[in-house]
Amino acid sequence: MRILVINGPNLNLLFQRDAEKYGSLSLYNIEELLKKEFQSHSFQFFQSNSEGDIINQIHNSHSDFDGIIINPGGYAHTSVAIKDALELCKLPKIEVHLSNLASRENYRQNLITASSCDGYISGFKGNSYNAAVYLLEKVLIRK
Amino acid sequence: MRILVINGPNLNLLFQRDAEKYGSLSLYNIEELLKKEFQSHSFQFFQSNSEGDIINQIHNSHSDFDGIIINPGGYAHTSVAIKDALELCKLPKIEVHLSNLASRENYRQNLITASSCDGYISGFKGNSYNAAVYLLEKVLIRK
Amino acid sequence: MRILVINGPNLNLLFQRDAEKYGSLSLYNIEELLKKEFQSHSFQFFQSNSEGDIINQIHNSHSDFDGIIINPGGYAHTSVAIKDALELCKLPKIEVHLSNLASRENYRQNLITASSCDGYISGFKGNSYNAAVYLLEKVLIRK
Amino acid sequence: MRILVINGPNLNLLFQRDAEKYGSLSLYNIEELLKKEFQSHSFQFFQSNSEGDIINQIHNSHSDFDGIIINPGGYAHTSVAIKDALELCKLPKIEVHLSNLASRENYRQNLITASSCDGYISGFKGNSYNAAVYLLEKVLIRK
Amino acid sequence: MRILVINGPNLNLLFQRDAEKYGSLSLYNIEELLKKEFQSHSFQFFQSNSEGDIINQIHNSHSDFDGIIINPGGYAHTSVAIKDALELCKLPKIEVHLSNLASRENYRQNLITASSCDGYISGFKGNSYNAAVYLLEKVLIRK
Amino acid sequence: MRILVINGPNLNLLFQRDAEKYGSLSLYNIEELLKKEFQSHSFQFFQSNSEGDIINQIHNSHSDFDGIIINPGGYAHTSVAIKDALELCKLPKIEVHLSNLASRENYRQNLITASSCDGYISGFKGNSYNAAVYLLEKVLIRK
Amino acid sequence: MRILVINGPNLNLLFQRDAEKYGSLSLYNIEELLKKEFQSHSFQFFQSNSEGDIINQIHNSHSDFDGIIINPGGYAHTSVAIKDALELCKLPKIEVHLSNLASRENYRQNLITASSCDGYISGFKGNSYNAAVYLLEKVLIRK
Amino acid sequence: MRILVINGPNLNLLFQRDAEKYGSLSLYNIEELLKKEFQSHSFQFFQSNSEGDIINQIHNSHSDFDGIIINPGGYAHTSVAIKDALELCKLPKIEVHLSNLASRENYRQNLITASSCDGYISGFKGNSYNAAVYLLEKVLIRK
Amino acid sequence: MRILVINGPNLNLLFQRDAEKYGSLSLYNIEELLKKEFQSHSFQFFQSNSEGDIINQIHNSHSDFDGIIINPGGYAHTSVAIKDALELCKLPKIEVHLSNLASRENYRQNLITASSCDGYISGFKGNSYNAAVYLLEKVLIRK
Amino acid sequence: MRILVINGPNLNLLFQRDAEKYGSLSLYNIEELLKKEFQSHSFQFFQSNSEGDIINQIHNSHSDFDGIIINPGGYAHTSVAIKDALELCKLPKIEVHLSNLASRENYRQNLITASSCDGYISGFKGNSYNAAVYLLEKVLIRK
Amino acid sequence: MRILVINGPNLNLLFQRDAEKYGSLSLYNIEELLKKEFQSHSFQFFQSNSEGDIINQIHNSHSDFDGIIINPGGYAHTSVAIKDALELCKLPKIEVHLSNLASRENYRQNLITASSCDGYISGFKGNSYNAAVYLLEKVLIRK
Amino acid sequence: MRILVINGPNLNLLFQRDAEKYGSLSLYNIEELLKKEFQSHSFQFFQSNSEGDIINQIHNSHSDFDGIIINPGGYAHTSVAIKDALELCKLPKIEVHLSNLASRENYRQNLITASSCDGYISGFKGNSYNAAVYLLEKVLIRK
Repeated sequence: MRILVINGPNLNLLFQRDAEKYGSLSLYNIEELLKKEFQSHSFQFFQSNSEGDIINQIHNSHSDFDGIIINPGGYAHTSVAIKDALELCKLPKIEVHLSNLASRENYRQNLITASSCDGYISGFKGNSYNAAVYLLEKVLIRK
Repeated sequence: MRILVINGPNLNLLFQRDAEKYGSLSLYNIEELLKKEFQSHSFQFFQSNSEGDIINQIHNSHSDFDGIIINPGGYAHTSVAIKDALELCKLPKIEVHLSNLASRENYRQNLITASSCDGYISGFKGNSYNAAVYLLEKVLIRK
Repeated sequence: MRILVINGPNLNLLFQRDAEKYGSLSLYNIEELLKKEFQSHSFQFFQSNSEGDIINQIHNSHSDFDGIIINPGGYAHTSVAIKDALELCKLPKIEVHLSNLASRENYRQNLITASSCDGYISGFKGNSYNAAVYLLEKVLIRK
Repeated sequence: MRILVINGPNLNLLFQRDAEKYGSLSLYNIEELLKKEFQSHSFQFFQSNSEGDIINQIHNSHSDFDGIIINPGGYAHTSVAIKDALELCKLPKIEVHLSNLASRENYRQNLITASSCDGYISGFKGNSYNAAVYLLEKVLIRK
Repeated sequence: MRILVINGPNLNLLFQRDAEKYGSLSLYNIEELLKKEFQSHSFQFFQSNSEGDIINQIHNSHSDFDGIIINPGGYAHTSVAIKDALELCKLPKIEVHLSNLASRENYRQNLITASSCDGYISGFKGNSYNAAVYLLEKVLIRK
Repeated sequence: MRILVINGPNLNLLFQRDAEKYGSLSLYNIEELLKKEFQSHSFQFFQSNSEGDIINQIHNSHSDFDGIIINPGGYAHTSVAIKDALELCKLPKIEVHLSNLASRENYRQNLITASSCDGYISGFKGNSYNAAVYLLEKVLIRK
Repeated sequence: MRILVINGPNLNLLFQRDAEKYGSLSLYNIEELLKKEFQSHSFQFFQSNSEGDIINQIHNSHSDFDGIIINPGGYAHTSVAIKDALELCKLPKIEVHLSNLASRENYRQNLITASSCDGYISGFKGNSYNAAVYLLEKVLIRK
Repeated sequence: MRILVINGPNLNLLFQRDAEKYGSLSLYNIEELLKKEFQSHSFQFFQSNSEGDIINQIHNSHSDFDGIIINPGGYAHTSVAIKDALELCKLPKIEVHLSNLASRENYRQNLITASSCDGYISGFKGNSYNAAVYLLEKVLIRK
Repeated sequence: MRILVINGPNLNLLFQRDAEKYGSLSLYNIEELLKKEFQSHSFQFFQSNSEGDIINQIHNSHSDFDGIIINPGGYAHTSVAIKDALELCKLPKIEVHLSNLASRENYRQNLITASSCDGYISGFKGNSYNAAVYLLEKVLIRK
Repeated sequence: MRILVINGPNLNLLFQRDAEKYGSLSLYNIEELLKKEFQSHSFQFFQSNSEGDIINQIHNSHSDFDGIIINPGGYAHTSVAIKDALELCKLPKIEVHLSNLASRENYRQNLITASSCDGYISGFKGNSYNAAVYLLEKVLIRK
Repeated sequence: MRILVINGPNLNLLFQRDAEKYGSLSLYNIEELLKKEFQSHSFQFFQSNSEGDIINQIHNSHSDFDGIIINPGGYAHTSVAIKDALELCKLPKIEVHLSNLASRENYRQNLITASSCDGYISGFKGNSYNAAVYLLEKVLIRK
Repeated sequence: MRILVINGPNLNLLFQRDAEKYGSLSLYNIEELLKKEFQSHSFQFFQSNSEGDIINQIHNSHSDFDGIIINPGGYAHTSVAIKDALELCKLPKIEVHLSNLASRENYRQNLITASSCDGYISGFKGNSYNAAVYLLEKVLIRK
């Protein structure tokens, strides 16, 4: 299984963010742990702070991957454009968030992009990514 | 690991609900699949249509379990009382939803109870439960 | 025709409520008048102040009845759980209200449960029930 | 009993509308069925697409009728003027809707005119009219 | 001074309305009192329940009158069309209301048509009309 | 007739304000014109920029005056305290505004204090005061 | 191609309206220019200030025309009744507005009737009509 | 004086809750302190996590008690059904809250049930109950 | 214990207000009854209709008093400035209201100043003050 | 006439989107059809998923083009930055949408960018572009 | 340059407020530092807790000063009256806030008075005043 | 002191924008004036229309600069992503706006990014930048 893991704005500096909310791992650590736990799959990590680049990456994923994990960061709450891109893409898609959005600011309660995914996982810090791979396996097998 | 799985209103009739949204498994099927996949843990399934009984069950979980998985059904969007009960309980707690709430009615976007859990998972039908067990393992190990 | 008549919170004390809004009949009077007018049908009256019990009763109605009349009282405006239960039940369902909700408080304008019924009747005091039986006959014949 | 049945905009083309929501009867069919079922009463059907004509008709109903059934169509949600006309009229008044408004668009949830009627009935297609006559009988007898 | 007095829906039945809010005069009484108090002016009273007729009347007022007094009744709160018609008309225009709108229902607080008039007067029952004539004199003299 | 004319914040500098909206008269000019037109009445003009002083003045008006004209300026839209004071006072009370509030900013559409007056007049610049005296005469005679 | 062009309130006085927003043509000028540019089609212009008459005209259009162009004026933002009439009519329908609604008052942003048309054009003054004919040709050919 | 003290969801675990907000007493401690301070009265403490049981208890209080103190917990903000039950009950009723609701989350500002009580007390931890007894004495004596 | 009792706008005319809502006592009566019941404490009553004077009084209370009781009247719902003054003052502070705010107008549901007090009491007419003294004793002893 | 056609996010994959809403043409097809119909003009098609690139393109359009057609896709509803860029650009500008926005999701009703264009066209699939060219001709000639 | 520095409610007790938000200087310290840094200007500090006194001070500033710095405290968010007073005053005016309003409570986001100033500065504690003087120099020179 | 000055969308064309709101300087002029006034500091001006590039620039500022001045243009009101980037960056940060946002459109009142800065300055055209440097000096010295 080839999995594309798209990471939105500020996730390149994850290790500097508030550990209480986001955990203490860097994005690189998350990638390493994923590869270690799920050795039979290949992972490609993509990170960009640009809404347009994220859309481009989603568009180009079609032929090269079996599934998408996306953490859209702040764009999760505002980007109709990413939502439309995800809707166009017919791969299984899972949205992940490191922090528990339900207990954060009001403007993080509105989930625009998640409505174009199969489902979403929020609040388990780095493990949100692991659970997404675990579920992609289930979703792809179910097919 | 002893896991309490609390199921809210209408989940006893899960097999009759719209398969497109909720999947085609009964609650009993979900329990069987969980026990099969996670044989080293013990599971206690509890289902009630009553808000008060669910609160009672949360109160009583303290000494007998290592973690809680809760699908509060329709109470997820309205019950301040269940939210307060979850906040009181110091076990790891994961909220699960079968359907992808982000693509459903407006009144299902408001998540009251999830803000007192560690995190939540939405949209993977029966597999939302499996992922919750998978994550409870991570959470408990991390501790 | 076997008809289940579900009555929600505070309807057991109907005779004590404001006659201007709710009429001067007790729930028992309503039952008596219904049986007298519609002698060819059997009626089972159920009343509970508990949201969970009402859901249970809806779940259990499937095999024993031909139609449901429900006055959810205050739960009509707040209960996603009862709404989901009604949606699961495939019998003809009619919601009734004694008072004219359109001329009452703002928080009584929001109809959650009625959207899972065939239709609703509001404002005719005890006669709202009679009209519901009258309409159940029509609905069942039309089938 | 002389009953005035006022029908608002687009009800003249009822037979062309979506049968799933409105039923498959024309307004003429509804009139025929009403006359057949309630032979002891006289009915006068009035239909207009004009807000002003409907108000005029309500004003003129006082001496010639014993009760009013009104289906204000789209004006039910916007017309303060019809609401004021109904409030002026001291006959028993029942508002009817063919479709179940509670499960339709947001802008059809707001009931302006119904608050000046005795009550309202929604969702039973053509039978909403029949139930209104049934209830007018009750209301007038109760007096 | 030739004054056109436009009266909207339900004002033809003014004498039947709630005297506490609207006063006990009929529209005819108001006309008589106006003519008696302001003998040097000519008045033309127009009443219609139809939004379109009121717009037509405003359109036709240009050459025959020196000023307009309008009581749009329920249309004051909803009619963008009458507002646009008033804006087109270059005569002095005063909106009047019999009752004190500031102490009535929420949906009567929104003043659409008044924003295209010179000003408005609310709450003095029949005398709202007299004050409007009194002010038209001032406005026309000031010119 | 002894009339108290209460003027709220910034009306002492009326002559400096935007003539397009407020007219070109000073408060003193308004007073002079009022006295000239209504010579049989006595007027006491009061102006204060302080909410508390305005309330005190209303409290003290009971025995010395027959009616109150009040232009609460910016307090018209925010002061629950002035509204309560006006409600306590049993004299006839008329609220006046120089500009046409219906065509101004949103936060000037909310009328708190006017709901405790007999009625209000808006948009006729200095003449709003004259019309208020004209109406006080009517109101007091009607009594 | 026979085209019905329905024009709502105040469009009969178009030539008097603010040229900056609406252009400097009269409705008659628009008609003349349309006939000149599209000589192979026949046009019937209808204008009314009455909501009911507009609905009647839509109802009657079915057999005599191939397409409808409608400028509902102020009714575009408030009329559920016209929206329902348009939905009933199975001809191609295009809504036009002379001014650019997106840069005008808040209450003109709400488009009720346009949702029952094929599409809408806003902001090109008289040319909005020409573009509508241009598009009707495309729509009808595409069929 | 026989006083019924109704306690809603999660108050059975009061001693485990955040002492900063709720104080450090258990419900049993509160009961003991009340009995000690007010020895001439009898108290019956009732606690339930179930909305329906609380309604039942209110219904049954009529003949056995002279007054009710109710802490509805989370139901205070959502339960129309408990509000209706309290309205039916003609005993003096005082609502109490341990924490100062005015400085807590938005969804705790909405007071549904308190509007059917004589008054309410919020923010004095266990002493809110004592003050309620103190006031019940006043209320009953005043009668 | 030296207690400062601050009374906001219109409380000087308490005896004239609606007895149904506010009780029939004057502010002087309340003071007398307080002194009679709590003879071991000294009370200083302060009343002002001015927001600024109330803030000044709060500022000056620090050294001369042991606790504050405040009835901010209409300022309770609008004054950020009084709220900030109360927050600055480190004495125990209790807000009181004579009427039951939960059953009054919408604009009286918003409690700005109470969030800077220890707690608040609403609905017991003059006895709200007595309960506040009773609670101040508890609060000060608890310290 | 040199026309710049700017296409926002996801329009590069137009051919994959829902044909019911967006039509079955690719962006390339649209370009071909435009060139074929309007042979006397030159067209430059630009597509980007990046908000910043679209702004850059608008900035650079000034000297090379006579008019702009823009389909901002999802950015139409959220981008204040594109709106400001369009306002800066003094060329004629027309916004186009393939689908009928008036009948889609709530978050697509808010038109931010269109308010800085001459006008907009919505709902005619690929033909929205053709009509925009047709109108640019009119606009440029009118100048 | 003669500068008037107006300080609203609670700024007299600045030294007692939360240093994290407001800094640790007293108002007197701020005045001293200002005079020390800007020795070529004269400063007059005014502080009042009364809305009316602040308005009076603004009215009287015209002839004696070259510019105004105002910190309206809590009145910044509620006072239409101060806003109107500032609009009347033709001197350069700068609003300052000690704390960063953008990161505080919702009710502090609404800026009523700032819209009548040249601009505003928020978040630099005592230095907000210094920056205002620095900018007044620029503004006055620019003139 | 090395200062990074980040400028968001459309500021590259500042000289073309409305001078009344934004002043008549180009961004280059602002830079020149800044360098001239503050010769002891070094400035690096960065401008981009791309949200992603602005985030990248903020991320890279850490080691090379002592403080950040940011004018986020239209992104100030919508970008959760830039807000999160600013929060991550531990340098002193000041947000500047050329125009007075408090007197502009509603959608410019919402300040998302400013809540992650030390403070903000709005309304002084080019001088907003100068004041920001002036304040950065204060902030850095204070440290």
